Amino acid sequence: MSEDLGKLVDQIAHMDPDHEGEEQKVIAVQTEALDERQLALLLEALPLEDRLQQWGRISDAQKPLVLVELKNDARLSILNNQSESELEGLFSELSPEELIECSDNLPDSLIDLALNQMDQKQRLHFESSNQFEENCIGRYADHELLVLPQNAKVFDAWRLLRREVPECTDALFLTDRVGRYAGTVPFEQLYGAPGHIPLAELIDEEAEALPGDTLLFDSVEVQEQSGYVLLPIIDAKGMLIGRMTFKDSVQILREKHEADMLAQAGLSEDEDLFSPIIKSSLRRATWLGINLLTAFLASWAIGLFEATLQQVVALAVLMPIVASMGGIAGSQTLTLIIRGIALGQISRGNLGPLMIKELWVGGLNGVFWSAVIGGIAYVWFSDVMIGVVIAVAIALNILAAAVSGVLIPVILDKFKIDPALSGSVILTTVTDVVGFVTFLGLGTLLLLNP
Amino acid sequence: MSEDLGKLVDQIAHMDPDHEGEEQKVIAVQTEALDERQLALLLEALPLEDRLQQWGRISDAQKPLVLVELKNDARLSILNNQSESELEGLFSELSPEELIECSDNLPDSLIDLALNQMDQKQRLHFESSNQFEENCIGRYADHELLVLPQNAKVFDAWRLLRREVPECTDALFLTDRVGRYAGTVPFEQLYGAPGHIPLAELIDEEAEALPGDTLLFDSVEVQEQSGYVLLPIIDAKGMLIGRMTFKDSVQILREKHEADMLAQAGLSEDEDLFSPIIKSSLRRATWLGINLLTAFLASWAIGLFEATLQQVVALAVLMPIVASMGGIAGSQTLTLIIRGIALGQISRGNLGPLMIKELWVGGLNGVFWSAVIGGIAYVWFSDVMIGVVIAVAIALNILAAAVSGVLIPVILDKFKIDPALSGSVILTTVTDVVGFVTFLGLGTLLLLNP
Repeated sequence: MSEDLGKLVDQIAHMDPDHEGEEQKVIAVQTEALDERQLALLLEALPLEDRLQQWGRISDAQKPLVLVELKNDARLSILNNQSESELEGLFSELSPEELIECSDNLPDSLIDLALNQMDQKQRLHFESSNQFEENCIGRYADHELLVLPQNAKVFDAWRLLRREVPECTDALFLTDRVGRYAGTVPFEQLYGAPGHIPLAELIDEEAEALPGDTLLFDSVEVQEQSGYVLLPIIDAKGMLIGRMTFKDSVQILREKHEADMLAQAGLSEDEDLFSPIIKSSLRRATWLGINLLTAFLASWAIGLFEATLQQVVALAVLMPIVASMGGIAGSQTLTLIIRGIALGQISRGNLGPLMIKELWVGGLNGVFWSAVIGGIAYVWFSDVMIGVVIAVAIALNILAAAVSGVLIPVILDKFKIDPALSGSVILTTVTDVVGFVTFLGLGTLLLLNP
Repeated sequence: MSEDLGKLVDQIAHMDPDHEGEEQKVIAVQTEALDERQLALLLEALPLEDRLQQWGRISDAQKPLVLVELKNDARLSILNNQSESELEGLFSELSPEELIECSDNLPDSLIDLALNQMDQKQRLHFESSNQFEENCIGRYADHELLVLPQNAKVFDAWRLLRREVPECTDALFLTDRVGRYAGTVPFEQLYGAPGHIPLAELIDEEAEALPGDTLLFDSVEVQEQSGYVLLPIIDAKGMLIGRMTFKDSVQILREKHEADMLAQAGLSEDEDLFSPIIKSSLRRATWLGINLLTAFLASWAIGLFEATLQQVVALAVLMPIVASMGGIAGSQTLTLIIRGIALGQISRGNLGPLMIKELWVGGLNGVFWSAVIGGIAYVWFSDVMIGVVIAVAIALNILAAAVSGVLIPVILDKFKIDPALSGSVILTTVTDVVGFVTFLGLGTLLLLNP
């Protein structure tokens, strides 16, 4: 499927825009077969001009669905290029759930436009979702619920089920008179139950309701453990406000994965392939600036040994090797510990044994690679002492990397800073500085003629 | 929840092993409340001795379930420390699905042991799963199916449903006389349907069966789009061999996320916190070796300019800054393109515009940071020309990084090499070498006294 998308991008790029020919019909047929997620991916893959043209070819019914799927930057690039009347048409079609999904970074005027088109019930749904933060499950509650009053009977349930069952539904919810959640009745309890039995007797006591302020990632866990396809979401007063389905779980995990991968390079999850140049540049500049500070620290460490470098230029040549080996070894430990922290596996109780194990692993690799690199350096510069200096420096730096790899994420986590984001910058700074200082320091001691 | 796990690890670490006291009872009560996934996380978080002791306290009924959840290294560490009779007890309890999940790296003798305890039907299930590769959905097919013959009627379905409905089930499957998949009947079609209607008339024509050799990640996509909670899995002959539920989707995404994060540091997904030291060291050595090659390339590039470095030692001091800025800028572009490739968004058609955009972003950041760094270098070394040399080198290196960040992953992908794995090593090599050569080359041209 993803290959087809690439081909389509190709065809659109090579299309003659001034000539409505056979080619364009082929493209039109192919895009019609795409669902909203694929259409969003296609639009994001196109430079602005082509993107707007393809957007114009999407049916009015699909446009709101595609809008929701687009990344923020891509969505804004399209909205900024629509006329007033086009925007009105588009925003009068949005459901409360869709409006919430794309409400970040949206001008208030557009949100008001959409709200004005909604009926009272839809507006209430929007308000109910909008009370929750962006990282809470309540914000993304789906309002297609099967709900019955607490005193309803089995035949009431059947009457409801015969009318229509929303997608991905394997239970119905009961509420009290004011709308507070009162229990979950799995459909399977209905099969074979006599019609006059009160539904309250069929409630699954183990089924839990999800408070709306549950963090997205935590709610995936709750759902996975529940064994239910959908979970009721309640607000602080216990009112049933919506449901979370397994599709939400899949989407949350997918987006978390993407965001984590991008964050490691200091990129925003809003960024798409053709985000505006100025916006992209500014966002990326921050990360470059942070890394520049650490690079200057490394330079400063080297600067302490200017006199040594002047006399033994081989040290300058070999410097990157010491820094690189420490950085790589450290990032291996760091990654393992970060995963452990994310899974809740790290505590004061196992920190000691973990450190010992990582020091052993670092020690073994340190000894082995020191010997290899020391040997190569000796042959390269025909100087035994240079081999010794780099071998010792590398062994020490790999051990320092093991210690930092364990401690840095644990300390960051203590201070509530996400180690996945900043851990590797700090680690590299440590291994760079330790590496340069030990290497050049040893060089000063052992290689300089007094 | 993940905080509780940490506390438990703490308590176990500080427990007096020789004294069965109040403390141990508290721990026992807490571990009993954990499900199999949490128990597996707990065991992985403990050093070997504590791990084995805690394993001994898990009930026999839960042991097989926990075994399945453990990472390979942790599982082997436990199995290697069980007596023959304990292993026999454990492996006689495994279901075909559980045996498949933990069969990688398992000695054949243990697999045979488990197979011998199974009945004919279970063995067939095992064989049917085992015919598929590790990365295919057929291998993980769940065999708890609701199946009826193609000519069954609605009342047959009700008779089946009243008996028992497996967890997460919203449809039943029809097969022909020899067991070939013939269609999916969603439960909602049954609600209100008269009993004498043939089920074949209620088949959802849009419901698709998943071929067993579908890649795991692709099958998540199929399931997400299907709107079904479960999908039938068929083999090459069209026989219905099992089902995939949304729980599988969640698990596949979770594991893919973990594996991707670990792979970036050259770690295996089997690795747990307390993997055996020798095994860990050997695995990590490979990645260190690969990175060493690239570090030597950088050193070689520096070595070309030994004479220059001897005369202008400031160049040696500033070298890391040039390399670092190029590496960071490049990895930002690289990450963006790798995501685009994973989503199928990159093709020859948009490569040109993408390159132009990335060059603009790189150009803007290059100009800005060149000015900043050039200024600092000028003040630091009181030498205008050093400022000019580093400014030009950084601007050029950031541009080279933008080009490499786009091209390297695209070329790797063409050769069917996963760019997420090797892209960043190759990129860093390029930015290091280009950075050092332009910086020291310019220094040679502009700073050396002829």
